Amino acid sequence: MMPSQLFYLSYLLCLCLGILSVVFVSYWNYKWRGGFAWDGSAMQFNWHPVLMVTGLVVLYGNAAVVYRVPLTWRQSKQPWKLLHAGLLFLAFVLSVLGLCAVFDYHNAGSTPNLYSLHSWLGICTTALFTAQWVLGLAAFLLPWSPLAFRKLLKPIHVWMGSVIFFLAIASCISGINEKLFFALKGNTNQTQPYSKLPPEAVFANSLGIMIVAFGLVVYKILSNPDWQRPDLVSEVDSFRPLLQEES
Amino acid sequence: MMPSQLFYLSYLLCLCLGILSVVFVSYWNYKWRGGFAWDGSAMQFNWHPVLMVTGLVVLYGNAAVVYRVPLTWRQSKQPWKLLHAGLLFLAFVLSVLGLCAVFDYHNAGSTPNLYSLHSWLGICTTALFTAQWVLGLAAFLLPWSPLAFRKLLKPIHVWMGSVIFFLAIASCISGINEKLFFALKGNTNQTQPYSKLPPEAVFANSLGIMIVAFGLVVYKILSNPDWQRPDLVSEVDSFRPLLQEES
Repeated sequence: MMPSQLFYLSYLLCLCLGILSVVFVSYWNYKWRGGFAWDGSAMQFNWHPVLMVTGLVVLYGNAAVVYRVPLTWRQSKQPWKLLHAGLLFLAFVLSVLGLCAVFDYHNAGSTPNLYSLHSWLGICTTALFTAQWVLGLAAFLLPWSPLAFRKLLKPIHVWMGSVIFFLAIASCISGINEKLFFALKGNTNQTQPYSKLPPEAVFANSLGIMIVAFGLVVYKILSNPDWQRPDLVSEVDSFRPLLQEES
Repeated sequence: MMPSQLFYLSYLLCLCLGILSVVFVSYWNYKWRGGFAWDGSAMQFNWHPVLMVTGLVVLYGNAAVVYRVPLTWRQSKQPWKLLHAGLLFLAFVLSVLGLCAVFDYHNAGSTPNLYSLHSWLGICTTALFTAQWVLGLAAFLLPWSPLAFRKLLKPIHVWMGSVIFFLAIASCISGINEKLFFALKGNTNQTQPYSKLPPEAVFANSLGIMIVAFGLVVYKILSNPDWQRPDLVSEVDSFRPLLQEES
């Protein structure tokens, strides 16, 4: 099989696992957790997993692999830079909304915020993602950004990008696990306990495994040197910020 | 700062975070969870986090960075291969004992096994680690292993090694989070609830963040191309299995 065929097979798998993860997390909260609202109730909380998985995992992962699509390598990098930044901005907005959903729900019920390890890790991940997006904007999109700063930041930006993705997946796994222990308590709230593995538990556990599989496919795409966009243009051009006119 | 000085600084940080993680996980279970025994009680369960963190995270992470120590680059690779395999074998033994601890505890109390997402992810991680160790032994230690097989397996072995490390850390985070929700229930078991962040919760949450920090330092060491062992010997020699005599 040609390297590009193998890439597109991996990319298709990445897209399918990403879409399935969004469908699974939405269906879980719609079917078993009472659906969605924005009124401080548990239905507002249900937006939290949907928005975090969609933003910080699926959109983020797809934004990370944008430059690897071989079809784009002979084209100017600028529109793909814009797509990368745009997808990550959307991921950022969704993750902020996802945090609002859980803070509003906690505050409405006078539940403390930020006490679990899941929440500590999740808030660190979102803070790092915010810093990464702002620095990425400053270095790679704003026209007055010095070339030396962009050159210095690029490897850090790439490395930190994969770290944030890893932290986001670890946060999701601990969050799904925590939610199932909260929700499936057996007699105390008329559910089958988590330990009896009712259909909801099997479904949400499978969602967790699917998120991990999505992460591994993205990591495989990112770590294959044959799938890295070759530097066809000059170094200066490749580091030109997006908002600067092409000469 | 010279690249090797920066390496030793990172390596020192890796060693310190690894030792601190083992100390923290042991102290948590000694001070707040009742200590250790091997009698099917909760004290047997307490071996589970200690053995998994020590084996699958700390020993595993240290085994992964063995080849990066610049002092070893001018020496034969063989003793370092043996150290790599030996540390991973010890990690494997500890993780199997860690699984025995939790299975014995569950079986003694008729608690079902393998229902939570943490347990699904953890058992997949240990299964992958077992396969990785057996294949690594077959390819890189046994003298009758064909060169072509070793060449084919090496990049897969390296990639899968980092995947297993990532899965082990995600398993630990979800496990610590789950244990704290089980243990700190407030009125029902005479503890302060997790949501009030008693000293135990702050301590164990910090352990989780420390494990993540250890993982990031290991990942930084592994992903820096300047810190990769250069191929000073011939390709054939570098792929020679350990048990074959040096010519």
